[in-house]
Amino acid sequence: MDSKPSGRRRFLRNGAALAGMALAPAGGIASGEALANVGEVNVSDMNAIENVLYGRRSRFVTTTRIIEGSSHSDMPRPRPSPTRPSAKTPLGETMGIITATSLHFTTQHHYGIPDINPAEHRFMVHGLVERPLVFTVDELKRLPSVSRIHFLECVGNRPNPNARTVSDSHGRMGCSEWTGVPLTVLFNEVGLKNGAKWIIAEGSDGGKHEKSIPIAKALDDVLVAYGQNGEPVRPDHGFPLRLIVPGFEGIYNVKWLRRIKVVDREYLTFQEHSRFLSSKPQTQPNSYDLGPSSVITYPSGTHRLPTHGTHIISGLAWSGGGKVRKVEVSTDGGKTYKEAELSGAVLPKAHTRFLLPWRWEGEEAIIQSRCTDEKGQVQPTEAEFAKFFGLARAQLYSTISSQLGHANWIMPWRVNRDGNVTNALPPVGVVTDVHGD
Amino acid sequence: MDSKPSGRRRFLRNGAALAGMALAPAGGIASGEALANVGEVNVSDMNAIENVLYGRRSRFVTTTRIIEGSSHSDMPRPRPSPTRPSAKTPLGETMGIITATSLHFTTQHHYGIPDINPAEHRFMVHGLVERPLVFTVDELKRLPSVSRIHFLECVGNRPNPNARTVSDSHGRMGCSEWTGVPLTVLFNEVGLKNGAKWIIAEGSDGGKHEKSIPIAKALDDVLVAYGQNGEPVRPDHGFPLRLIVPGFEGIYNVKWLRRIKVVDREYLTFQEHSRFLSSKPQTQPNSYDLGPSSVITYPSGTHRLPTHGTHIISGLAWSGGGKVRKVEVSTDGGKTYKEAELSGAVLPKAHTRFLLPWRWEGEEAIIQSRCTDEKGQVQPTEAEFAKFFGLARAQLYSTISSQLGHANWIMPWRVNRDGNVTNALPPVGVVTDVHGD
Repeated sequence: MDSKPSGRRRFLRNGAALAGMALAPAGGIASGEALANVGEVNVSDMNAIENVLYGRRSRFVTTTRIIEGSSHSDMPRPRPSPTRPSAKTPLGETMGIITATSLHFTTQHHYGIPDINPAEHRFMVHGLVERPLVFTVDELKRLPSVSRIHFLECVGNRPNPNARTVSDSHGRMGCSEWTGVPLTVLFNEVGLKNGAKWIIAEGSDGGKHEKSIPIAKALDDVLVAYGQNGEPVRPDHGFPLRLIVPGFEGIYNVKWLRRIKVVDREYLTFQEHSRFLSSKPQTQPNSYDLGPSSVITYPSGTHRLPTHGTHIISGLAWSGGGKVRKVEVSTDGGKTYKEAELSGAVLPKAHTRFLLPWRWEGEEAIIQSRCTDEKGQVQPTEAEFAKFFGLARAQLYSTISSQLGHANWIMPWRVNRDGNVTNALPPVGVVTDVHGD
Repeated sequence: MDSKPSGRRRFLRNGAALAGMALAPAGGIASGEALANVGEVNVSDMNAIENVLYGRRSRFVTTTRIIEGSSHSDMPRPRPSPTRPSAKTPLGETMGIITATSLHFTTQHHYGIPDINPAEHRFMVHGLVERPLVFTVDELKRLPSVSRIHFLECVGNRPNPNARTVSDSHGRMGCSEWTGVPLTVLFNEVGLKNGAKWIIAEGSDGGKHEKSIPIAKALDDVLVAYGQNGEPVRPDHGFPLRLIVPGFEGIYNVKWLRRIKVVDREYLTFQEHSRFLSSKPQTQPNSYDLGPSSVITYPSGTHRLPTHGTHIISGLAWSGGGKVRKVEVSTDGGKTYKEAELSGAVLPKAHTRFLLPWRWEGEEAIIQSRCTDEKGQVQPTEAEFAKFFGLARAQLYSTISSQLGHANWIMPWRVNRDGNVTNALPPVGVVTDVHGD
């Protein structure tokens, strides 16, 4: 094995060395003196039978979801609400593309979480169909299924001058492997009638959350999901059944699904009427797909770079338009960009992890990322987004999210001279934070 | 929307209808009478703040791992052992390709699970290197990382006439997204010396589990992993650091990793010496990769087909050789095969889910699956495996797993006339079930 430095190797060696890790030389350690771990076995609580049956995380790992208040609260004022729990994904501490189910955001339960016994749950498909049918959960599980990795993002996600962390701005999203029955399979069972143009999906929550979806999308890739990351969908994610509408706003992914009605035209459901009264600009004309987006998760707001030297900028990119084609990262506020490495699986309508090594010598720097998806759609800057929709900058933040549409503009972070990372969006006045599911 | 039956649709309609689901027509239900779910909201324990911080599963979901006894026990005698917990994945109830972390097998902790404080943990790379180094966990996390979805399989997995369930035979495996630092990155930091041919990886368990790995593999795709399915690796999976050696036997994936020593030749470590004394046949000549394998998870042992009609045969396929190219399913004991659908992501050295609709009219049937990987390697039958290695059939089951090598032969299940599914391997005498990690 030749140990002569390659280009890459030189880079990496300089990297770690200059990142000031002060890595300990292992000269006197080969004997094992400095490694106290061996033999210090604590057959403790974590070895209890319960933990063997259903594993738990380390007592040293304390990351949690970030609880937010009601849907009308401003972001900086989290108000725990056990009856209407909403919580964001701690994006600044995630890794890879799969979001741990226990840490996956769960936003805006309109009337609490139903406590559903799956043996008693029924799911109905009716309306413009030849044979309306009611399914038990077990019956659904016996139909052809598919498992796909997809992101879910609430339209409430928005780059925001008031966001202290990347969870504040983008924590209303996660990515899971979803298992379920394609709607095409169910529609083949019930037989669509002529004139079937839309579906209305209805949940079992107290508020009967409903959402209208065009039939073309329903026939494309929509699932009635019962599985998430290898086990049954959890109560806060819609147990026992939820709709998965890949690439659409989160609110379409109706939880605790009890009914799909096939209809002849778009209806304004109660939720849509009361909360989504205004017509909204479509970021993707003639499409409901979320646009191309990305955000740097490390380093991001409240992180601190401990040393000068090479750091790995890491983040997530995604698009309702399909696969992420490329992600570019700027460390000079958008003047120049470098293409980042897409690390791991690149899957359609799924989170994609990107990485870029960056050498930081203590200068103030604005870091930001830009996503291009497989359709060639490019994530806009804040100014480009405002210009495209004819909005003043302040309107980007005073308009409620559900009327604004997918706020997919670029989120810049400032690395300050002391290494502390802060929000680099210039301040605005009022920030409204009303969002959907 | 034309509702005339297509070929596929006809199949599916016949399928569900003849599977005897007795689906309820929804004629009188459109008014909502038969759907009692709406409004029955129980703002219960699951809405507690704790559950908002770190989500839990439904109280109606009670699937657990399957505890097994010591490594020397026979399979049918599970003996809970809190000090040496080993537990299998409940494969018969999994879905998709991601194994829920809480249900992921954890086999053969030689001396219990270390209770490691990550802030105090150190990881050393030394031996035939220019600059031996000691890393903290935080330092490792600041190096370039990658996230990949890979299966882990213990060499103790084996089709087995005594197995009642698919967990008995194949439950010592799981599939996760692993995040960590490639060994190539670490080796670039420390600089390999000439003559570096092997590495020895050592864990922090009381027994200092060690394993030797050829340098070519170490430079290929081995990771020092700190993340599993989006959160830190859990204690029973090696917290805070474990080795991931994609496609190799589970025992190579050293948990609670504390040390990698670069050496000049293969060493017989203590564990290898005491437990792996005999030379073993290599199922893949000149390779340590696990061979192509697959198993039907539904329907499998102890399942029962409730009705005649169409059922979806589902299972997992995997190979240490790379991606799964195709899976074939036989419902006549191997006389004929049909190609199954590969459902969802097909990734290298990862579980791949396959599905095949099958019409069952109450006849006795032997169902089994056969994997072909991207190298063209084909999963053997029991007879082919025995013939290839010159073993009598009984030796396949009396030889301890670690000496036999990867027992990747085809596992048949019998669907009996009453719908009950049982093991279809003919009985043998003694079955030895000693395995590695």
